[in-house]
Amino acid sequence: MIELPPVEVKENDVCVKMLAAPINPSDINRIEGVYPVRPKVPAVGGYEGVGEVYSVGSAVTRLAPGDWVIPSPPSSGTWQSYVVKDQSVWHKVSKDSPMEYAATIIVNPLTALRMLEDFTTLNSGDSIVQNGATSIVGQCIIQIARHRGIHSINIIRDRAGSDEAKEKLKGLGADEVFTESQLEVKNVKGLLANLPEPALGFNCVGGNSASKVLKFLSQGGTMVTYGGMSKKPITVSTSAFIFKDLSLKGFWLQKWLSSEKATECRNMIDYLLCLAREGKLKYDMELVPFNNFQTALSKALGLHGSQPKQVIKF
Amino acid sequence: MIELPPVEVKENDVCVKMLAAPINPSDINRIEGVYPVRPKVPAVGGYEGVGEVYSVGSAVTRLAPGDWVIPSPPSSGTWQSYVVKDQSVWHKVSKDSPMEYAATIIVNPLTALRMLEDFTTLNSGDSIVQNGATSIVGQCIIQIARHRGIHSINIIRDRAGSDEAKEKLKGLGADEVFTESQLEVKNVKGLLANLPEPALGFNCVGGNSASKVLKFLSQGGTMVTYGGMSKKPITVSTSAFIFKDLSLKGFWLQKWLSSEKATECRNMIDYLLCLAREGKLKYDMELVPFNNFQTALSKALGLHGSQPKQVIKF
Repeated sequence: MIELPPVEVKENDVCVKMLAAPINPSDINRIEGVYPVRPKVPAVGGYEGVGEVYSVGSAVTRLAPGDWVIPSPPSSGTWQSYVVKDQSVWHKVSKDSPMEYAATIIVNPLTALRMLEDFTTLNSGDSIVQNGATSIVGQCIIQIARHRGIHSINIIRDRAGSDEAKEKLKGLGADEVFTESQLEVKNVKGLLANLPEPALGFNCVGGNSASKVLKFLSQGGTMVTYGGMSKKPITVSTSAFIFKDLSLKGFWLQKWLSSEKATECRNMIDYLLCLAREGKLKYDMELVPFNNFQTALSKALGLHGSQPKQVIKF
Repeated sequence: MIELPPVEVKENDVCVKMLAAPINPSDINRIEGVYPVRPKVPAVGGYEGVGEVYSVGSAVTRLAPGDWVIPSPPSSGTWQSYVVKDQSVWHKVSKDSPMEYAATIIVNPLTALRMLEDFTTLNSGDSIVQNGATSIVGQCIIQIARHRGIHSINIIRDRAGSDEAKEKLKGLGADEVFTESQLEVKNVKGLLANLPEPALGFNCVGGNSASKVLKFLSQGGTMVTYGGMSKKPITVSTSAFIFKDLSLKGFWLQKWLSSEKATECRNMIDYLLCLAREGKLKYDMELVPFNNFQTALSKALGLHGSQPKQVIKF
C-alpha cells in the first residue's frame, strides 16, 4: 500500500471516493504479467468497482457529491481510496443497489449477458449448456437465462459437496445439473428428458469438461470459450466439425468493451443492477474491510480453498 | 459387378451412358458404413461422374442423345454403365471439357470454391493458409485463390519427395509452401515475408498439422475443417479462443448441397469446368478402364502408396 501525491480536480473531472472493488482473477493475471493487455507501470490494480462522488470540477453538472458511480467501460485503478477521472468515465447508478453488486456488475454478469446474446438467437423455451456452472459467470448465466425463459443444463466438478452445489444451482433456476462423472455415458442427450438440445454452450474449464459441453450441443451448435480453469486445452474430433457442424468461438469481455457495441454498456449495467436489486441475480461475495486486504488477496489467490468473491470495502 | 434388370425410361426420364466416375474417399466410407449418411441398401456406389445421353423420354426437350451431362446436385449410383433418372437430375456440360475433369468437378473443386467463399470475405491481395496442400482440394484451393489474386500459404508433410511437392505446388500458384518441420519455430509468422496474415485457414489433417494452421491465423481468424487425414483430433488452447478470438468451423459438401444455397450449384460447376478447360485448374488423375476396377479400387484404398485420383472409364 502506498500514498500517491495529490491530484488536481480539473473542470471536467470528478473525484470519487471508492466504496468497494472486487479482486477478480483477471486482476491477478494482470499483476502477474500473464494477461495479454498490460497497463503501463507503475499502475494501480483493480478494473471495476463502485464509488461515491466526493467533489466535481467546475464544468460538471451531471454528477454531484454523494452520487454513486461506477467507471464504465471499466478501467484500471479501482483499488484506491480516491480516483480522479474525467466525468465521461463515470456512470451514475442507483444508491438502492447493494454495494457489493454495484462493485462487481460488469466483469462477471456482463460476460454472462453478452454470451447469451451475441452468438445465437435464443428464444424462450430454448436451452443452453455450460460447464463450470458454480462459477459466478455460471451462476449469472443460469439466472439471466431463467429470467428469459431459457433452460440451462449445467456441468459441475465431482467433489465433496457436489450434492449441495446441485441444490444451490437448482435454487437459482438451473434445470439440470450433472457432475462430470454422471456424463460418462454413451448418450448424454438421453439424460435430458424433455429439454430441447442446446444450440449454445459455454466453456470456462477446457479439457474433458469442454468435451462434455460439445456432446450436449445440437447439430450446428456453437461452444463459446471464456475461461480455462483446468489449464487444459480443448480437444475436438474432426467429425464434430464436418458432420455435426459445430462452431467453436471465444469471448473476452475486455475486447467486447472496446468494440462499437459497447456503447450500450451502461443500459446493460442498469438492467443487471435492476435484476440484482430485485433478488433475481445473486452470487456469493465477501465484503472485506480494506485493512484486511492481505487476507482477501490470499483468499482470492485460492490459498484457502473455495471462497466467495472477495470485495474490498474502502 | 452385377447385372441389374432393365429399367423403363418414362416420359420425363433420361437414360445416360456413363463415361467416367471417380472413386472418392467418401465413396469408400459410404461402403464401409462409416459415413454419417448411408444410402438405402442394396445400393450402387459412386456419387459423381459424367455421362452421355443415350435416350430421352417423350417429354424431354432440354436434352438430346449425345449430350454430356453430370448429375447435379450429385447423387448415389454413378458406378453403373447406364443410369436412368428424371431429367431434372442432369446438368448439360460442354463436350470440350476433359472427361476426367467433368467426372470429378463437384466433390473436390466445389469444396475448395465454397470454402473460399462461405466463411470470410477475401479480397485480392489477402492470403489464406492450409494444410494437406497436396490433396486435390488443396491444389484446387491454391489455383482458385490464385485466379482471384489471393495468396496461399501451404503446409505439407515431411517425407521423401517434399522438395518436388513444393515445386509442383508453386507451379500451380502457391506463394509459400512449408513442411511441418519447417514450422517448428517460435514465430511462424516471421516466415511470411511480405504476405498479409491470413484470416482464413483450411484443415484436412488434424493433430499437430491443424495447430500449425492456427498459428498462422490473424487475430479473429477462422479455421475450417473439412477432413481428418491423420485421424487425430484438433487441440486448441483456451487463450486462442479468448484472446486471439479464433473461430473453428467445419465444412461438409454433402450438407451444403442440400441447402438453399445449392441452387447456384450448376453455375459453379460451369465456372470450375471453364477453369479446367483453360488449364487454370489442374490435378492428377488416372483414367482406368472399367475392366481394371479392382486395381483402381486398391489404389484408391491406398494399398499402393500415394496415387493419383482413380477415375473409372466405362
